[in-house]
Amino acid sequence: MRAVDIIMNKRNGKELSRDELEFLIRGYVEGRIPDYQVSAWAMAVYFQGMTPRETGALTEIMLHSGKTIDLSGIEGPFVDKHSTGGVGDKTSLILAPLVASLGIKDPMMSGRALGHTGGTLDKLEAIPGYRTNLSVEEFRRILATTGFAMTGQTSEIVPADRLLYALRDVTATVESIPLITASILSKKVAEGAEALVFDVKFGSGAFMKDFSQAEQLARSLVETGKAMGKPIIALLTDMNEPLGTMVGNFLEVEESLDCLEGKGPADLMEVTLELAARMVLLAGKAPDASTARQLCEKALASGKPRELFLKNVEAQGGKPEELLRLRGTYRSPHWKEVRAPRSGYITHIDAYDIGRAGVLLGVGRNTTSDPVSPTAGIQFHHRRGDKVQNGELVMTVWGKDQGSLEEALPLLEGALHIEDALPAPRNLVAKEICAS
Amino acid sequence: MRAVDIIMNKRNGKELSRDELEFLIRGYVEGRIPDYQVSAWAMAVYFQGMTPRETGALTEIMLHSGKTIDLSGIEGPFVDKHSTGGVGDKTSLILAPLVASLGIKDPMMSGRALGHTGGTLDKLEAIPGYRTNLSVEEFRRILATTGFAMTGQTSEIVPADRLLYALRDVTATVESIPLITASILSKKVAEGAEALVFDVKFGSGAFMKDFSQAEQLARSLVETGKAMGKPIIALLTDMNEPLGTMVGNFLEVEESLDCLEGKGPADLMEVTLELAARMVLLAGKAPDASTARQLCEKALASGKPRELFLKNVEAQGGKPEELLRLRGTYRSPHWKEVRAPRSGYITHIDAYDIGRAGVLLGVGRNTTSDPVSPTAGIQFHHRRGDKVQNGELVMTVWGKDQGSLEEALPLLEGALHIEDALPAPRNLVAKEICAS
Repeated sequence: MRAVDIIMNKRNGKELSRDELEFLIRGYVEGRIPDYQVSAWAMAVYFQGMTPRETGALTEIMLHSGKTIDLSGIEGPFVDKHSTGGVGDKTSLILAPLVASLGIKDPMMSGRALGHTGGTLDKLEAIPGYRTNLSVEEFRRILATTGFAMTGQTSEIVPADRLLYALRDVTATVESIPLITASILSKKVAEGAEALVFDVKFGSGAFMKDFSQAEQLARSLVETGKAMGKPIIALLTDMNEPLGTMVGNFLEVEESLDCLEGKGPADLMEVTLELAARMVLLAGKAPDASTARQLCEKALASGKPRELFLKNVEAQGGKPEELLRLRGTYRSPHWKEVRAPRSGYITHIDAYDIGRAGVLLGVGRNTTSDPVSPTAGIQFHHRRGDKVQNGELVMTVWGKDQGSLEEALPLLEGALHIEDALPAPRNLVAKEICAS
Repeated sequence: MRAVDIIMNKRNGKELSRDELEFLIRGYVEGRIPDYQVSAWAMAVYFQGMTPRETGALTEIMLHSGKTIDLSGIEGPFVDKHSTGGVGDKTSLILAPLVASLGIKDPMMSGRALGHTGGTLDKLEAIPGYRTNLSVEEFRRILATTGFAMTGQTSEIVPADRLLYALRDVTATVESIPLITASILSKKVAEGAEALVFDVKFGSGAFMKDFSQAEQLARSLVETGKAMGKPIIALLTDMNEPLGTMVGNFLEVEESLDCLEGKGPADLMEVTLELAARMVLLAGKAPDASTARQLCEKALASGKPRELFLKNVEAQGGKPEELLRLRGTYRSPHWKEVRAPRSGYITHIDAYDIGRAGVLLGVGRNTTSDPVSPTAGIQFHHRRGDKVQNGELVMTVWGKDQGSLEEALPLLEGALHIEDALPAPRNLVAKEICAS
């Protein structure tokens, strides 16, 4: 077998065999196949695509390029949720303790903020003392005792994805549905989940801005999961506006607590509950999505998810009482306000602009090695659909330093659109994709 | 400017600017842009193509990646011919002295045999003493005195092409019309030619087997030449059967001498004269192709091209009298015969099979470092359209050793097709492509 023939087969639109994919990917990870052949193959995949069978085989080969988490000895079911990334998206922090309170184990391996999108690990680390670099033994123990555990991916998990993603990033081959599918699924399956719910976001603040592209990715995830024998449900959710009223690391922890206390904003609660309901459904705890959602709402009202959240904070090295004490006050000393430049209805607060401003403020980062600030962020006092008066406070903005505020302000002002007419209502959860 | 954006632009079907192409290619040659980005770009070009303007810019950038031959001080016009490679194709050896006898200078930089196709340098080096590694000064002097000079490409000419070709070869990106165009044209322009005739072959023994692919390449060469201000004519010629009656290094020198003495086989003479006529036309020595061809036929009959050929042999280190003495006898001692397995008409002698047999015999090579034999080869006593009796001699075959003969014989026997009916006549020069 020669790598050049495998590239040529894909270039010519053929379906690659599992052996061919294994030769290429394993050879790459083990240093026998050079990166210039893999990047040419990735570009051929960009143009020719992959069948669900190919994508499934690639996912399994990537999965087995490293270690997988062994959850044997812990009682399941193990169900996780993964989002393709957005702005203000803190649903993981809410739904993990929520489904845990219903007897579902959520083994969650999360990512960090990158580009305009936020990262669950950065948010959790804004809680003083909270550790996200758990050993496998700690991960197992915390999962078993609090029902969910939140950690970063270790370097032993799916090394093929790290190598491949870094190469795709510099060769314009990121935007390939089958390669994105294999990258996401291999990591999620490696963490031990038996079933998965995907939050595939579309809109300006999403990775896939275009609805039909996002829908293709959702279908690819579901179909590849089916080819691998993994039950998957994907929801397509709107990411044109930031989710919730807070964008920032500690700010989003606070808003998650609000949600766990029944005081969450409607848009965030809607997306969180719809995702949680699918997890409950896949866990076999309810016969249909609406019953599952009712179970979730009841669980939330019981206060048990909040308890589990604080228990997890403690288990992962944070101090719950310190977290509660900092609530409402843990903010950068550098702040500014954005006020309405005219009276009218807010028709749009652009999620992408907000996300890019967040990078400047210190919420997110441009490159993986940049530090983030726990106390930077944006609070929205008014949002889409609200009527505001000229000069009324719309955003409070905290920056890592004064200069970052100066830089971010024009973006934030540009993100805010006010018009005379009330905007049309949005369909937050636009579509559900299940295995056929 | 970032390489990843250039790759993305091409991936998205945009026309790249000269600056973008220069950033990429110059960066690659100078070691700033890594090969994995260039291979991804090449695959994007494979799928998205290039406009004539882009191909012209790429050709010029590649051309200027190294030295070009300075022919100033020598009287022109400088016209060269280039073939995309075939089996038994020795037209260069005949037409260079032929057009030189008409006052045209042919600065010829040729290649070596590779795969099933032969190489002009290997043929010339079969003449004892003949040197093809001329210094630029020798090249200029011989060109000025004998009207043509035959040398290999030095490492200083178009280094970008050597790098890029080696990368394309292992990343399944060779078969891209604009990349092939830039590779061929940059080298031909670097050698100093003012106008060019291309022999774009199609059929089993050609690089482009498919006629429409070959036609695309011919058009791309002509149009890119136009974008660069270089007059180009391309002829599409049939390479389903070996050209002439000899395949082999010294054997083909002999057949070239036969042609220069007016005893050449009809197919070889037809292709040679049509190509030479286009060179005469582009040099402005005749008003149209048919007048140009008449000039060529007259020149050939004068014996002057033969004189120039022998003068060139002497100038490049060979001994003309030794060449003439070896004629008809300089053969490997290892030989066999292929006889007709039945009576009938020869309908086809497959050029690709003959070329592959040639590699086994020692005429050609699989990798650039393999040696070739001067005295190996195949002589056809009968060819397509001839009536043969069962057992009649069709080929005499000389191999570098006995084992090579055993290996090659089944291929040669398989290449020979005999049927009851006379085959339809061929159109050797199937099409002419000129700038619109």
